[in-house]
Amino acid sequence: MPNTTSTRCLSATDFTAPVEDRYFEDYVPGSVYEYGYVTVSEEDVIDFALRYDPQTIHTDPAAAEAGPFGGLIASGWHTAVLCMRLFVDHYLSHVASMASPGMDELRWPRPVRPGDTLRFRAAIEAARVSNSNPARGLVHTTAEMWNQDNELVLSLKAMNFLRRRSPAAG
Amino acid sequence: MPNTTSTRCLSATDFTAPVEDRYFEDYVPGSVYEYGYVTVSEEDVIDFALRYDPQTIHTDPAAAEAGPFGGLIASGWHTAVLCMRLFVDHYLSHVASMASPGMDELRWPRPVRPGDTLRFRAAIEAARVSNSNPARGLVHTTAEMWNQDNELVLSLKAMNFLRRRSPAAG
Repeated sequence: MPNTTSTRCLSATDFTAPVEDRYFEDYVPGSVYEYGYVTVSEEDVIDFALRYDPQTIHTDPAAAEAGPFGGLIASGWHTAVLCMRLFVDHYLSHVASMASPGMDELRWPRPVRPGDTLRFRAAIEAARVSNSNPARGLVHTTAEMWNQDNELVLSLKAMNFLRRRSPAAG
Repeated sequence: MPNTTSTRCLSATDFTAPVEDRYFEDYVPGSVYEYGYVTVSEEDVIDFALRYDPQTIHTDPAAAEAGPFGGLIASGWHTAVLCMRLFVDHYLSHVASMASPGMDELRWPRPVRPGDTLRFRAAIEAARVSNSNPARGLVHTTAEMWNQDNELVLSLKAMNFLRRRSPAAG
């Protein structure tokens, strides 16, 4: 299970504001940050799938061997929640995050296999102050997971409401 | 944890083909089916969030009590994977499902709270045979989760490739 003690910033630069003191103003469009790594074991793949996505391609190594991917692959939802874990540990403010209205364009361009080591990449696409509530703003992020061969295995577009540090400033 | 022995079809009609013998042709646009129920306990909410979405609103009842929702709420990703479990147990063919390219428009219009009892609703929006591979087709589904007060708590648009029962038939 990933956690802040075992994962870290991988990109040359990180936010200047730490996650415990990060606000809407710190999400600057054009910024790109990477964090990792998370390794997915066969046990992890099977355990997650038995709970939430019990298809044999995710739960039964022998059946999966004979299937279209030639072996066990992780549930796409498993990769998505591992992405969420890194998103929460390193990217999303721990003090200014409000509800998320949703996510768009969740894609799984390549399978994740047991033993794969993944990193998370966040690109800030847009950030605008709310018209209806100027104390907060909406941040649009492209979140991705990449494997050890530098192949994209997941992408999604996230929306997050964040409180502003200084609503009165404009 | 939901499973096929504890959840069942709730709608007046179900697919005529059982999930073990269901193919592309059985997904008829306009059809709507419901399955359930899944109850979410406080322990489930906290356990999932500690693994994948450790925000205090999902993990710490006291902190959540003072927060914007006045109490603990489930991670939106938790509701999504419970939706996936019902989707796999009752809706998605166990013999003809191929990879899913992704999901769109994942939304969480209302929070899920400990003790809520959810049901899953699947509406078949479109189904078309693949031009590039006439042995299969792509099915578009609107998947939703509803609570015991008949409030929508999750919706998403799923895409699934399914093998045809009779590719030669046209």
